[in-house]
Amino acid sequence: MSIKIPRGTKDILPEDSAKWQYIEKTAADICRNYQYEEIRTPIFESSELFLRGVGDTTDIVQKEMYVFEDQGGRSLALRPEGTASVVRSFVENKMFGAANQPVKLYYTGPMFRYERPQAGRYRQFVQFGIEALGSEDPAIDAEVISIAMEIYRQLGLKELKLVINTLGDNESRKAHREALIAHFEPRIGEFCSDCQNRLEKNPLRILDCKKDRDHELMKTAPSILDFLNEESKNYFDKVQKYLGEMEISFEVDPTLVRGLDYYNHTAFEIMSSAEGFGAITTLCGGGRYNGLVEMIGGPATPGIGFAFSIERLLAALEAEAVELPVQTELDCYIVTMGEEAKDHSVKLLHKLRQAGLSAERDYLDRKIKTQFKSADRMNAKLVAVLGEDELKENKINLKDMSTGEQQQVDLDVFVEEVKKYRA
Amino acid sequence: MSIKIPRGTKDILPEDSAKWQYIEKTAADICRNYQYEEIRTPIFESSELFLRGVGDTTDIVQKEMYVFEDQGGRSLALRPEGTASVVRSFVENKMFGAANQPVKLYYTGPMFRYERPQAGRYRQFVQFGIEALGSEDPAIDAEVISIAMEIYRQLGLKELKLVINTLGDNESRKAHREALIAHFEPRIGEFCSDCQNRLEKNPLRILDCKKDRDHELMKTAPSILDFLNEESKNYFDKVQKYLGEMEISFEVDPTLVRGLDYYNHTAFEIMSSAEGFGAITTLCGGGRYNGLVEMIGGPATPGIGFAFSIERLLAALEAEAVELPVQTELDCYIVTMGEEAKDHSVKLLHKLRQAGLSAERDYLDRKIKTQFKSADRMNAKLVAVLGEDELKENKINLKDMSTGEQQQVDLDVFVEEVKKYRA
Repeated sequence: MSIKIPRGTKDILPEDSAKWQYIEKTAADICRNYQYEEIRTPIFESSELFLRGVGDTTDIVQKEMYVFEDQGGRSLALRPEGTASVVRSFVENKMFGAANQPVKLYYTGPMFRYERPQAGRYRQFVQFGIEALGSEDPAIDAEVISIAMEIYRQLGLKELKLVINTLGDNESRKAHREALIAHFEPRIGEFCSDCQNRLEKNPLRILDCKKDRDHELMKTAPSILDFLNEESKNYFDKVQKYLGEMEISFEVDPTLVRGLDYYNHTAFEIMSSAEGFGAITTLCGGGRYNGLVEMIGGPATPGIGFAFSIERLLAALEAEAVELPVQTELDCYIVTMGEEAKDHSVKLLHKLRQAGLSAERDYLDRKIKTQFKSADRMNAKLVAVLGEDELKENKINLKDMSTGEQQQVDLDVFVEEVKKYRA
Repeated sequence: MSIKIPRGTKDILPEDSAKWQYIEKTAADICRNYQYEEIRTPIFESSELFLRGVGDTTDIVQKEMYVFEDQGGRSLALRPEGTASVVRSFVENKMFGAANQPVKLYYTGPMFRYERPQAGRYRQFVQFGIEALGSEDPAIDAEVISIAMEIYRQLGLKELKLVINTLGDNESRKAHREALIAHFEPRIGEFCSDCQNRLEKNPLRILDCKKDRDHELMKTAPSILDFLNEESKNYFDKVQKYLGEMEISFEVDPTLVRGLDYYNHTAFEIMSSAEGFGAITTLCGGGRYNGLVEMIGGPATPGIGFAFSIERLLAALEAEAVELPVQTELDCYIVTMGEEAKDHSVKLLHKLRQAGLSAERDYLDRKIKTQFKSADRMNAKLVAVLGEDELKENKINLKDMSTGEQQQVDLDVFVEEVKKYRA
């Protein structure tokens, strides 16, 4: 009996992996130009980290985490997201003392959430994200947003919508919070039990509720924008000004919130507006979290970042019918006739490959005609034909597959000849 | 209180991640030239897969696996190695029916073993590996070995030792097995309890025992080389002949074994002979496993592959004092004077980066002198200085950090000027 892949996970097969590589390379190259460097953290962490860093009232932590004990009795969890781990590493490795500040990091790798599998939603998915720790300059907020937009732009996405908001600083958040409680409290009985719990704990998250989204009080809820103090307002103005200077269009949506206490100032989401992308339109979410580093046990340090799922990015590329340039070519396929030629091809292949050329031959004792078919399927630029006669004369036949032209070349200059077709 | 990284795991920090990227890119580029394509399988699989594919008598499965139940009660395990998952995917996705045969795959990613942490040994480590499925041509065995050697060669390792052996086909293995039992049985009481268990189950693994390695019967144990039938002998001769043609030196060591039943024919290991590399000298292990695909539930399909740990490869590079070419440069650092210039730099930075140039500025309101220091630390090729006077005249000062030469350029051609220094 065969064994199946675990439910909610999938293999990335050769026909797709080139796309993943292309996306990851594009994102990494862009990060390099913005001076963000890669960090890699473990697949699992102490469960405690996510209770603190993601929040013990969130669905992610309460319902969706893969938690297990190792043989030493430690409670570990497969990471459900990347930021908590990056901040844990920032604190543990004392990066707050590094020479270059702010510390600019990016990461990419699998994350895990035990959710009901559905189209575009997997229990293991890959997130790409960045974090900038140590600066509270609104230019960094704009930079972070611009990196996400630049990655999408370079990959070829066009139908994007950037939505931004501010949660203000602590003072502004507090004033807004009180107004929210006053607004919802008289009629909280009409809301779902989750919202009733949220009222005192975290009224901001009521605005995020999917069940109660159509309640009339939602439309009239007090907006954070009316509660911003001078400093928060100036901060948000600067972010918008910088986005304007980078010619990045955006909308302000005061209902875009982040529930947890350590979020403040800028919050943003990037959506795909491509037709046929379906119900899930958010590609990327991010925001400022000036309280998180302290929460994880480090010194007070401002931070901001974003994350996006590569699975969803691929879906958006497909919805816009973007073709990534991942077509592969083979420099040379060696067709052999007879045992001696086949043996000799091992050496020739090795020389081609050592010279940085892609090369292939048959490994299944196939007929010449079938070997030519393989060469075709592999998109070979050149086919080299080696028979016993040629071998005796130390020659090989070279056929240019685009023009059909043939020539016989000396085996000693074979690699050089193949190289000429590279350019 | 701060939260620590789980025991036996480590972060790969920015100062090291560039090396990892370089190694992975080198290996991936080489694989491409050999027509191996990337496959990515999930971090966890059904525990059952590893019981079958790695073997339920091995330490890896018995003692070292991270096994846990998901919320649906499925028994899952973090993968302890890569081959079983690749073969599971090969079977599940019916790659045995693909047009291009053999199917040539490579993978890279974290693996997990609950071992006692020690120098160079982690509970999460990264393996790079390849698998070629569907051909039993000895040229494929030689190719697989040559890929590992080529990766090490291109990275700059010189002090390598390649050891090969054959386990023969099933007939040869059986004859050898009987001879081993006859050899050890009379004095098996002198061996450790593990070896006593192995005698009937798997006598080949006695040769691999670390406790009994010095027992006198070990030296006189029957060699597989004396039990090879004609076909197995020819196969092994061809592998050696091909390695010779590729000018890859090797030693034959008849005590190099693979315990599990589905291994046959070629087995190999690559060791570092660098001084100071320490007790662990094996960098890479691989071999042929013609029975594995059937064991996982697929049609009988020959296969061969190898895997190496990147952590150990890095240790070998260090032991040989190889410097990987990962030095980074910054194309341009923008020093600003005054609020207006700082604001304007957002636009300039964005233009540079959109043009594919790496660029940076200060985000901490630092003084000019400190901004210059940052530029230096980031290895900036150019420093652009923008003050309010320059801004009024639509100019910027450009300083070439290698020559000290300065020039004033128009802001409209700024990006073009910076580009000139790229080459």
